Amino acid sequence: MSYVERKSVLVIGGGSVGTIAALNLQSGGSTDVTLVLRSNYNAVKENGFHIDSCDHGTIEGWRPSIVRNTVPNIIEENIKPYDYIVLSTKNIPDIPPTVVDLVQPALPSTNTHTTLVLIQNGLNIEKPFLESHPKTIVLSGVSLIGSAEPSPGKIVQDDRDRLMIGPFANPNLSTSSAADDAAREFVELYGKAGKTDCKFSPNVLHDRWRKLVYNACLNPICAITGLDTGRIRLADGAVDGLVRPAMREIVEAARKSAGVELGDDVVDFMLEIDELWLYLSPSMLADVRKGSFLEFENLLGEPLKEGKKAGVAMPTLEVLYQIAKAVQWRTKEQRGLVQIPPKRKTEK
Amino acid sequence: MSYVERKSVLVIGGGSVGTIAALNLQSGGSTDVTLVLRSNYNAVKENGFHIDSCDHGTIEGWRPSIVRNTVPNIIEENIKPYDYIVLSTKNIPDIPPTVVDLVQPALPSTNTHTTLVLIQNGLNIEKPFLESHPKTIVLSGVSLIGSAEPSPGKIVQDDRDRLMIGPFANPNLSTSSAADDAAREFVELYGKAGKTDCKFSPNVLHDRWRKLVYNACLNPICAITGLDTGRIRLADGAVDGLVRPAMREIVEAARKSAGVELGDDVVDFMLEIDELWLYLSPSMLADVRKGSFLEFENLLGEPLKEGKKAGVAMPTLEVLYQIAKAVQWRTKEQRGLVQIPPKRKTEK
Repeated sequence: MSYVERKSVLVIGGGSVGTIAALNLQSGGSTDVTLVLRSNYNAVKENGFHIDSCDHGTIEGWRPSIVRNTVPNIIEENIKPYDYIVLSTKNIPDIPPTVVDLVQPALPSTNTHTTLVLIQNGLNIEKPFLESHPKTIVLSGVSLIGSAEPSPGKIVQDDRDRLMIGPFANPNLSTSSAADDAAREFVELYGKAGKTDCKFSPNVLHDRWRKLVYNACLNPICAITGLDTGRIRLADGAVDGLVRPAMREIVEAARKSAGVELGDDVVDFMLEIDELWLYLSPSMLADVRKGSFLEFENLLGEPLKEGKKAGVAMPTLEVLYQIAKAVQWRTKEQRGLVQIPPKRKTEK
Repeated sequence: MSYVERKSVLVIGGGSVGTIAALNLQSGGSTDVTLVLRSNYNAVKENGFHIDSCDHGTIEGWRPSIVRNTVPNIIEENIKPYDYIVLSTKNIPDIPPTVVDLVQPALPSTNTHTTLVLIQNGLNIEKPFLESHPKTIVLSGVSLIGSAEPSPGKIVQDDRDRLMIGPFANPNLSTSSAADDAAREFVELYGKAGKTDCKFSPNVLHDRWRKLVYNACLNPICAITGLDTGRIRLADGAVDGLVRPAMREIVEAARKSAGVELGDDVVDFMLEIDELWLYLSPSMLADVRKGSFLEFENLLGEPLKEGKKAGVAMPTLEVLYQIAKAVQWRTKEQRGLVQIPPKRKTEK
């Protein structure tokens, strides 16, 4: 392979999803990966990642080409624009900074070279970038990986990485062929190591709505009830009383708001996608347990908004959304982002 | 006062509500109170109660006439039937033993002498007793007290005791006048110490539905979101998105299922009944924090069932109920009341 074929990739967010992405890209041998870390930076800088993966086996002390703890300012640091920027942080629009602000130093607004890949969950996540970076190709990455970071720098991937990549619709670009090409190239780079199931997917909306059957339903229900995906299936009536009604609302919202037909089997498929006896904690449950913020606006709020706009009755999702919002406020208050009046004793 | 006027009262359940009831009854000077304790028995046996009360002031080392840790078996122990049995335990029909089983040793099924007073929350709680003790007068006690037991034997009452007593309808009794009389006498005994606001109330269903505006709504919403009654009012949109819709469903269910008109102001009244700056934790929130079982069947399940039977749309209560049920299952599993398949590692 000649030098000119090498691609530069900036991966922002080296948690359980981003690290496996960085590992796949770097292992393929055709990319130089710069990985931006935050909470686990010191641990990884010192000892590298400890990766325990059903796709990659056990890897001790792994690092990509470059590890840093800030998003590079490519102008100030005189870095050539990256070929790809993969954004694999959480996406929590209600908590600053926004993902647009986060990426900005590495991706000028006028960018036309760099392809942005959002390996993040939820709906309408490309919308802010269509405004801030109108000429940038933005790809959707929908990952069905089961992966966690139980301690800083330790990645445990216990369910296969299945990644679907496709271009978000961008009305500012005259043709979609460049975006298609970029998506196909990224799929090739990601799959080169041969460890993963990364596919080009032309129907991004379909992929996203499909994953929402899990992420807008099982994910917040587990977070709110404190039950993992095994236990929620065992708990009296929770599947029929909560999970299925919520999932059916998403299926209907996908149909009416986006013309996406998910098929009748998607509810059972998503219900059973995590083996019961693995007792996996979906991301929001893990976040509640850690006292972290929830990605509830993109995962729950946006599909709810789209569904309601299309006239779909979504009573279950509505209540789950309102509860998730209250839980988010609780975390804000615990972290001092909102101030409340002091407690007083009763007055007689 | 002559000897014959004294009344014997058995109070079963000396938590934050039952202890204040026992204190009011005993302080009036006309009753001998036997109090049955469970988790705090040893603490109270040794040191008495420490009571810190907005109605009674601070009382150190208080004990009623008799403290015991079992419900007396009046036949085996040759005890004269009590004039009143006050049941002030939690009422959790989905977790054994049932309240009927609990009371049975002190209240034979054929009883006609003892009046049973249920100072417990929720709907239809008299129904099991109408079957097990068809000729017993059963009174409803609806308490709006704010009281807690932060440690065994320590009672902190930070909001006034307002107790409404009235007879439950009993189709097995030919007349309601004896039940009315018993209720009025109990009110007198309870109020004699002059520390509390205890009233006869002829419309038990009204009292119970009215309190459900708080207990079927604010109570589980606080428990599920982890926010107290002050914070839930401060959290973005929680009042309008969750609490008010739930409360309106109860108001409608009361009207349609029981002909109870609660009035338009009841929603605001119940929303603001706890002063915001007290940041009070309602019972279910306290229970969730302690890992205790929730009284969700009587507080949430029964009004939901009655409302739905009457054709009321109750989407908010439905979801809250299903979540509470899942949380209850979580507690059952944590306490070993349900067994689940063992966790296994993924198989490749």
